[in-house]
Amino acid sequence: MTSHTEQSAVTVLGLGPMGRALAGAFLDAGMRTTVWNRTPGKERELAERGAVGAPSPEEAVGASDLTVVCVVNYDAVDTILRRGAVTDALKGRTIVNLTADTPDRARDTAAWAAEHGIRYLDGAIMTPTSTIGTPAGVFLHSGPEELYREHRPVLDVLGGTHTHLGEDIGRAAAYDIALLDIFWTAMAGYAHALAVARAEGVSARELAPFAKGIGVILPPLFEMGADDVDSGLFSGEDNPITSAVSSMAHIVHTAESHGIDASVMRAAEGLARRAIGRGHGTDGFLRITEIMNPR
Amino acid sequence: MTSHTEQSAVTVLGLGPMGRALAGAFLDAGMRTTVWNRTPGKERELAERGAVGAPSPEEAVGASDLTVVCVVNYDAVDTILRRGAVTDALKGRTIVNLTADTPDRARDTAAWAAEHGIRYLDGAIMTPTSTIGTPAGVFLHSGPEELYREHRPVLDVLGGTHTHLGEDIGRAAAYDIALLDIFWTAMAGYAHALAVARAEGVSARELAPFAKGIGVILPPLFEMGADDVDSGLFSGEDNPITSAVSSMAHIVHTAESHGIDASVMRAAEGLARRAIGRGHGTDGFLRITEIMNPR
Ligand SMILES: NC(=O)c1ccc[n+]([C@@H]2O[C@H](COP(=O)([O-])OP(=O)(O)OC[C@H]3O[C@@H](n4cnc5c(N)ncnc54)[C@H](OP(=O)(O)O)[C@@H]3O)[C@@H](O)[C@H]2O)c1
Ligand SMILES: NC(=O)c1ccc[n+]([C@@H]2O[C@H](COP(=O)([O-])OP(=O)(O)OC[C@H]3O[C@@H](n4cnc5c(N)ncnc54)[C@H](OP(=O)(O)O)[C@@H]3O)[C@@H](O)[C@H]2O)c1
Repeated sequence: MTSHTEQSAVTVLGLGPMGRALAGAFLDAGMRTTVWNRTPGKERELAERGAVGAPSPEEAVGASDLTVVCVVNYDAVDTILRRGAVTDALKGRTIVNLTADTPDRARDTAAWAAEHGIRYLDGAIMTPTSTIGTPAGVFLHSGPEELYREHRPVLDVLGGTHTHLGEDIGRAAAYDIALLDIFWTAMAGYAHALAVARAEGVSARELAPFAKGIGVILPPLFEMGADDVDSGLFSGEDNPITSAVSSMAHIVHTAESHGIDASVMRAAEGLARRAIGRGHGTDGFLRITEIMNPR
Repeated sequence: MTSHTEQSAVTVLGLGPMGRALAGAFLDAGMRTTVWNRTPGKERELAERGAVGAPSPEEAVGASDLTVVCVVNYDAVDTILRRGAVTDALKGRTIVNLTADTPDRARDTAAWAAEHGIRYLDGAIMTPTSTIGTPAGVFLHSGPEELYREHRPVLDVLGGTHTHLGEDIGRAAAYDIALLDIFWTAMAGYAHALAVARAEGVSARELAPFAKGIGVILPPLFEMGADDVDSGLFSGEDNPITSAVSSMAHIVHTAESHGIDASVMRAAEGLARRAIGRGHGTDGFLRITEIMNPR
C-alpha cells in the first residue's frame, strides 16, 4: 500500500486463471484496475472487489498508462491489440506482455509496438497463479531498461522476484521456453510415473511423498550439470549414461507390459542410446544435450 | 560406531559408483567389509581403507552373513549369483539386492532365492552416490518384515531414510521404476532446455538459478496432483491443459527452428492433444495419466 501505487492505474487484458490472479494482486494493493476479457463474465468476481470492467479492449487500454497483457499466446495478443482502435488507444502508453510464447514472437511484437509509438516490455511468469502477490512468484522481464525501471513499482505489486534479463526483447521468452521445457517435461514424467505406479497397485498418494523427494534432488543436480554443459565435459564418474539407459529400458518395459504408452521415455532413451553409440557411454546423461543439437 | 555394527560383517558385490559408496559407508562404520567386482581393480581404494578384496563371488558371499548386491541390472545379478558355487555359498545367508530393475525381475529373483534356501530382501536407492552415509540418502525396501528388521541396523549404517514398503517383494522396484521415471524424464527436459537455451545465447550457468526454481515448484505440484489422479478429477481451473499444449508447441517450434531434436516434448504434447481431443481441454495436465493407460 505505498502511495506510489495507490494512486496509479493499471489495465489487465485477459482474465484466464493468471490474468485474474494479476488483477487481484493489483486490486489488493489498492490500485485503480481496469480489466477486459474476450469472453465476458470472467471479470465478475474482480468487479465485486473494485475492478472496472471495460466494454472493449480499446476502452480498457485507454483507462491506464500501463496495460498488462496475459492471454494464452501471441496469436491471441495480436487478435486483441492489432486492430486500429486498440493500436491507436495504446499510442504513447506502455504494454507489459506477460503472455508466454517464443522469442521471435516477442521480437515481432516489439517491432509492431515501435512502429506504432507504443512502449513495450516483454515478460514471463515462471510460477503458478497461487504465487501471485506472494514472495514465491518469479517474473522475468526484457526490453528497455529505463522503461523497466519506470514500471518496476507497479510490477513489484505482483510480489515475488523480478529479474530484468537485458534489453534484448526476446530474452525473457528464451528463458521462459527453456524453463517451461523443464517444467512440462517433468510433469509428463510425473503423470507417466503415476500411471505406471497405479498399474503396479501403488496409489498416487502413496507415491507422492517419494516423488517430492525426487523434486528435492533435482536442483543440486541442475546446478552441477550446468558446469558440465558449459564446459563440454560430461563426467559420468558417479552415474554413467549406460546406467541411465538401463533404468530407462526398465521403465519402458514395465509401462508397456501394462499397456501404458511410453513414448516420452522411449524418445529420451533413444537420445541416450545415440550418445552411447557415438562412444560416450562413460559420460554423464547430460551428454545428450550435444546429441540433440546438430551444431 | 555402535557395537552392533562394529562386530558385524558385510559383503558388497558390485563396485560401480554406487557399490563403492555403499562399501565406503560400511567401512566408515568400522564393519568388516568384503568386496568383489567383475572387473578387478575397482576395489583398490576400498582395500586401502580396510576392505577385504575377495578373489571370487563365492568367496565374497561366504565371508559374511549379509551380502549387498548393487550392479547395473538383474541380468548382471543373475550372471553373478546363479552359478552353482555362489548359490551354494549363499544357502542360509541373506541377500539385500539394491540393484535397480523391474518388479517382475525382483519377484523372479525372490523365487530363485526361496528355491535355494537363500533369504532375500529387495531394495532400491533413490538418491545419488554423494548421499550415501549422509542423512540425505533415501532407501526403499520390500520383502519379509522380520528379515528386514533383523538387518535394519546394518542398513542404517548407510545413513538416510529407510522405508519398508511391505512384504510384496516387487514393491520397492515398482516405486523405483515410477520414481526413476520422474527423475530421468525431468533430466531429459533439463538437457533439452539447456540445448535450446544455448541456441538462444543463454548459457547453462545463466539458466541454472531459474532451473533450480522450477525444481522448487515441482514438489507442491506433485502433492496436489496426487489427489487429482487418485480421485479421477483433474481440475484445470488454475492451469488448463490447453494452456500447457500452447507452451509445448512453442517449445517444439523454438527447438526445431534451431535444428534441435524435440522428440521428447513432441511425445508429451501428443498425449496432451489426445486428452483435449477426447474433450478434456478444461482439465489439468495430469489428465494425460488416464490417456496413457488404456484401462
Ligand atoms: N496458469 C498458470 O499457472 C500460469 C503460470 C505461468 C504462466 N502462465 C501464462 O499466463 C498466460 C495466461 O495463462 P492462463 O493460465 O490465464 O490461461 P490460458 O488458458 O493460457 O489463457 C486464457 C486467456 O487467453 C484468452 N484467449 C485465448 N484465445 C484468445 C483469443 N483468440 N483472443 C483473445 N483472447 C484469447 C482467454 O480468453 P477467453 O476467456 O475469452 O477464452 C483467457 O483470457 C499463458 O501464456 C500462460 O502460459 C500461466
Ligand atoms: N550412481 C547413482 O547415482 C545411483 C543412484 C541410485 C541407484 N543406483 C543404482 O545402483 C546400481 C549400480 O549403479 P552404479 O552407479 O554403481 O553403476 P552401474 O553402471 O549401473 O553398475 C556398474 C556395476 O555393474 C557391474 N556389472 C555390469 N554388468 C555386469 C555383468 N554382466 N556381470 C557382473 N557385473 C556387471 C559392473 O561391473 P564392472 O565394473 O565389471 O563393469 C559394476 O560393478 C544400478 O542399478 C543403479 O541404477 C545408482
